[in-house]
Amino acid sequence: MAPLPSYVSGAWHIPPDEGAPLTDAVTGEEIGRISTAGIDMGAALAHGRLVGGPALGELTFHQRAVLLKALALHLREHREELYALSARTGATLADSRIDVDGGIGVLLSYASKGKRELPNDTVLVDGDVEPLSKGGTFSGRHICSPLQGVAVQINAFNFPMWGPLEKFAPAFLAGMPSLVKPASQTAYLTARLVELIVASGILPAGTLQFVCGDAGDLLDHLTEQDLVAFTGSASTALRLRTHPVVAGRSVRFNAEADSLNCAILGPDARPGTAEFDLFVKQLVTEMTVKAGQKCTAIRRAIVPADLVDDVAQAAGERLARVTVGNPSNPDVRMGALATLEQREEVRRSLKALTDAGRIVFGDPERVEVLDADAERGAFLSPVLLRADDHGRAEPHEVEAFGPVATLLPYSSTREAVALAARGRGSLVGSVVTADPGFARQVVIGAAPWHGRLLVLNEEDAKESTGHGSPLPTLVHGGPGRAGGGEEMGGVRGVMHHMQRTAVQGSPSMLTAITGRWTQGSPRARGDVHPFRKHLEDLRIGDTVVAGPRPVTLADIEHFADFTGDTFYAHMDEEAARANPFFGGRVAHGYLVVSFAAGLFVSPEPGPVLANYGLENLRFLAPTFPGDELTVALTAKQITPRENADYGEVRWDTEVTRQDGEVVAKYDVLTLVAKREAAEPKEV
Amino acid sequence: MAPLPSYVSGAWHIPPDEGAPLTDAVTGEEIGRISTAGIDMGAALAHGRLVGGPALGELTFHQRAVLLKALALHLREHREELYALSARTGATLADSRIDVDGGIGVLLSYASKGKRELPNDTVLVDGDVEPLSKGGTFSGRHICSPLQGVAVQINAFNFPMWGPLEKFAPAFLAGMPSLVKPASQTAYLTARLVELIVASGILPAGTLQFVCGDAGDLLDHLTEQDLVAFTGSASTALRLRTHPVVAGRSVRFNAEADSLNCAILGPDARPGTAEFDLFVKQLVTEMTVKAGQKCTAIRRAIVPADLVDDVAQAAGERLARVTVGNPSNPDVRMGALATLEQREEVRRSLKALTDAGRIVFGDPERVEVLDADAERGAFLSPVLLRADDHGRAEPHEVEAFGPVATLLPYSSTREAVALAARGRGSLVGSVVTADPGFARQVVIGAAPWHGRLLVLNEEDAKESTGHGSPLPTLVHGGPGRAGGGEEMGGVRGVMHHMQRTAVQGSPSMLTAITGRWTQGSPRARGDVHPFRKHLEDLRIGDTVVAGPRPVTLADIEHFADFTGDTFYAHMDEEAARANPFFGGRVAHGYLVVSFAAGLFVSPEPGPVLANYGLENLRFLAPTFPGDELTVALTAKQITPRENADYGEVRWDTEVTRQDGEVVAKYDVLTLVAKREAAEPKEV
Repeated sequence: MAPLPSYVSGAWHIPPDEGAPLTDAVTGEEIGRISTAGIDMGAALAHGRLVGGPALGELTFHQRAVLLKALALHLREHREELYALSARTGATLADSRIDVDGGIGVLLSYASKGKRELPNDTVLVDGDVEPLSKGGTFSGRHICSPLQGVAVQINAFNFPMWGPLEKFAPAFLAGMPSLVKPASQTAYLTARLVELIVASGILPAGTLQFVCGDAGDLLDHLTEQDLVAFTGSASTALRLRTHPVVAGRSVRFNAEADSLNCAILGPDARPGTAEFDLFVKQLVTEMTVKAGQKCTAIRRAIVPADLVDDVAQAAGERLARVTVGNPSNPDVRMGALATLEQREEVRRSLKALTDAGRIVFGDPERVEVLDADAERGAFLSPVLLRADDHGRAEPHEVEAFGPVATLLPYSSTREAVALAARGRGSLVGSVVTADPGFARQVVIGAAPWHGRLLVLNEEDAKESTGHGSPLPTLVHGGPGRAGGGEEMGGVRGVMHHMQRTAVQGSPSMLTAITGRWTQGSPRARGDVHPFRKHLEDLRIGDTVVAGPRPVTLADIEHFADFTGDTFYAHMDEEAARANPFFGGRVAHGYLVVSFAAGLFVSPEPGPVLANYGLENLRFLAPTFPGDELTVALTAKQITPRENADYGEVRWDTEVTRQDGEVVAKYDVLTLVAKREAAEPKEV
Repeated sequence: MAPLPSYVSGAWHIPPDEGAPLTDAVTGEEIGRISTAGIDMGAALAHGRLVGGPALGELTFHQRAVLLKALALHLREHREELYALSARTGATLADSRIDVDGGIGVLLSYASKGKRELPNDTVLVDGDVEPLSKGGTFSGRHICSPLQGVAVQINAFNFPMWGPLEKFAPAFLAGMPSLVKPASQTAYLTARLVELIVASGILPAGTLQFVCGDAGDLLDHLTEQDLVAFTGSASTALRLRTHPVVAGRSVRFNAEADSLNCAILGPDARPGTAEFDLFVKQLVTEMTVKAGQKCTAIRRAIVPADLVDDVAQAAGERLARVTVGNPSNPDVRMGALATLEQREEVRRSLKALTDAGRIVFGDPERVEVLDADAERGAFLSPVLLRADDHGRAEPHEVEAFGPVATLLPYSSTREAVALAARGRGSLVGSVVTADPGFARQVVIGAAPWHGRLLVLNEEDAKESTGHGSPLPTLVHGGPGRAGGGEEMGGVRGVMHHMQRTAVQGSPSMLTAITGRWTQGSPRARGDVHPFRKHLEDLRIGDTVVAGPRPVTLADIEHFADFTGDTFYAHMDEEAARANPFFGGRVAHGYLVVSFAAGLFVSPEPGPVLANYGLENLRFLAPTFPGDELTVALTAKQITPRENADYGEVRWDTEVTRQDGEVVAKYDVLTLVAKREAAEPKEV
């Protein structure tokens, strides 16, 4: 059997050597071979930079989002095949769904976030304009642009589908090509994933490469614009982080390492409560899903001292019902570890853990299996320990990367938080309680040590996605032992692939560079009302100025009467004068914006389809009876939708009094039709 | 003379040894001695963690901001003394103002940002609620909490005031104690700064420590919750970054290293244009301010090939007018380098640069000085070089950290951008042009390689703060050679001192933990209208529900007539039906929110002083004639102001139709009086 191919520099590379064998986790049979012999790593990186990067640079965020969605739908069609291959890694169907469907879910989530939260543009504007001068001729704003290198993604063996996809999606959306390097043990599943992706032809050339096996001298070829995103052990993270090229060229490095995650049971959650049962059930789930081979699994169950016996007993009963065996058999609840070496590793860790505590369920050396050979396959019994001596460090430091957890007693909220912190940084923790006060104390106390914290109770249990599941819209990563990194989290994960740059200049330069109208830039008043222009014809800066319109006392009283808003500041001169902000009767803010709309509107049917919202409305000065209002409305941002006949236009809106004072400032949000859709061309 | 004292573990530490001498940059005389002998670095870090951190934890962001402002005003009173000491570092009065006033300015900026952009709370909520379930019982949100360690701040010699303060301010505001380690050469100025701060008694104990001299084994004592913020050379950055404890414990590490920053002259900026003069003037300024000892100084002047002669000549004429000498003499424009060793270092670099180009102004070995001894003081002539051969790497790699720059020709926009990138990552670059197209091309192209880009032209020149000045509201730092870090940038710099944690749970748990009302939490309807409650009495979740109020066709027509907003969707049934979103005549959005206000208002004078704005208004469904509207208004966030009789209250506002459909959703922003102020207690 030839080793699995890699996909580099736009072609499949078949290794010229024999490679190293990979084994089926269940049967121990050889399932494939792996090698990266003959790959020119420097050329692959250059291909990403020179072909993939520019190809992505041609696409807007929305266009990339469209491709991510297409890719997700394509992969979804091949799920059954991927599940079957996944079973050979030791995964049950439920496990495989987490990996396969979870990975596809990340693609869909980023497709959706990209369309909803990013502009249909190639540059991301970050934050507001920062005024830098009194006269307003000099301002600043931040833009984010994709790094001009390759995102080198080094993945762990436990999620051969989800792992690569959760790193790829934000990189692609940011505009950065990926080079994926899977862990050897389960690389055959990632290889099939990449085959499906390449065959689909959905992704532009050079945007996804795949190095199937040893990384060789890959890191030696990195430059300042490349990035390394790593998931795996703390020791490998340290080696990569201090690699002379990575450290010497300030290569952006993100690590997500296994951690000793905890779950804390609240003192309110006595036996018989829903929360007690939820805690026990979650603990057993986290121990057994993926045979406990999850960097987010619960390793430390922190329990009120007087409840440890109850939890041990209840968890033991549940664990006893967990059928171990061939993951393809539907009666099996827990499959095998990834390899026999992994099982030995877990057994070694268990030796250290039993020095510090005692086993309350399971036998590391013996397990009954269904429909499989217990010795040829990497099967292991779930093992629950209990460590009552807080003087021991092992439960907080020794990670058995398998179906293993330790019960730890606590006697005060403070102690529970302190025990959580002894993990020295975790990806995730959970608090199982119905008491909001306890939840708040634990979450606020433990947050600096965690990337994610789940509060579980009867209210959310049915819909909770669980302790172990990182979600694409939330950050994944944790401080210290967990690697000190951060991935996903929606747009945050996109920005980790971009360089943030402060741009300073005159307002009109900032407008030209960011593509957003900037306060102080010229407002272009033409002959045509901008509401009469289709999306393609509208230009940033297009403006209508309308008014003045007087606001009389009668208007104010009438508006109060009509709407029912008879707030004293509008109705009672004396009371209004006593108000610290008004000094007399004033017009309603709602009246001001309503009159402004009456001024800037263009009533006849036209390209402006709807006003769907307002943002950042501030009433900056009072409007007194007798004042006259003028409004200036200026096209600020234009966002065509990729698959619709219209797009969004954001209008800077400024309402001024006759003395030039700005009384209200806000953004009006409208939907504006495209010309092509409205007036179909004859072909 | 005893060495300068350090301030650690709550006390001044006088070193027991003789220390190493520090010299006056101008006269070469000994100005002080430096040593950290006898300091227990581990104890100092522990003091910060156990005393400083908890003290900051007791304060809200706004309370910390108040202290930063007080500190700034205190230091401002001591400016003259600090200028005088600063002159001994070789700085002219103008140079000293950048350092001293610049540092104070950072404190003021963070005081202001803290009050305006952070909550009056100890936890920072980051981003919106992320819905995680269909039924709405499970959601997520991110919080940021201060790291539970010490921010170790290692500064460079060139800005002994600004350097420590720009690192301290965001750390303090975040809630993280600082340990400041200045560079030896100019540590006496930082020592005086710290003396003034400690003597003021403004800062809580343990929040600022000062290690004056060698760091000793400081880094060996770091833990996962500490942070290192470094400014200095790339080689030191590499050493610190790969320190076994820093790398092994994932200690957050930020580096800001000198870089070979560029300025690009636009092809439009021919001699005789304002931009040509601005370019030359800025180049000379950047070469001579602080005698060119700025990590942001222009080292590479990238100029249209046919303008190199002109720029060389014009810059040479200006440089010839720069008087070098005793910085205390008002006729002197450029003072001394920090030490004689620094001068030797610059001369060595100049040798490498002259291999790749030729000098067009200045003599590295000879300079005429005013009111000083050219050999005892670290004086050096400004030196301008010219390198026409693009094959040479030196101009892009060799940094002469003094009054030195090199002219480089370019012949296309693409080439100008490529030359900028050859610095392999810079803190800052500028583009001098009046052409927005050129500016956009260069900025977008060069942004991935820069932390900051300045566009300079006649429009902004008068108010521009210049190429060399990092500003507290903008990020400072750059990729690659510049260290790969990021500091300041307003709240961004605060967040670099915090751990971001995703919190998942039921809406009411998220409300309890974040202190912000979360969609799906209970709305508390009491007997008292929440507008009748003072700030202290109001609780998150307090709600008024009002309505229903019918909306008639007559209302719509009347509103159109009254406001002038006769948009067809309100007026013309047939045209409205053709609109893709409405399907018939609909009420104005402004009418909906005006009626809602009429429903929820409590008209009599009371604690609610004003509605100062609206945010995130979305019209989610049409309101048709005959519909009835109900509004629910719920206290979402309460922000007392530290030094005022009132605070801000944000109200979640939801307007629904009789069929339960939400027609509008927004936040109403109000100012609400405090009880104590409104009804002063008798004491």
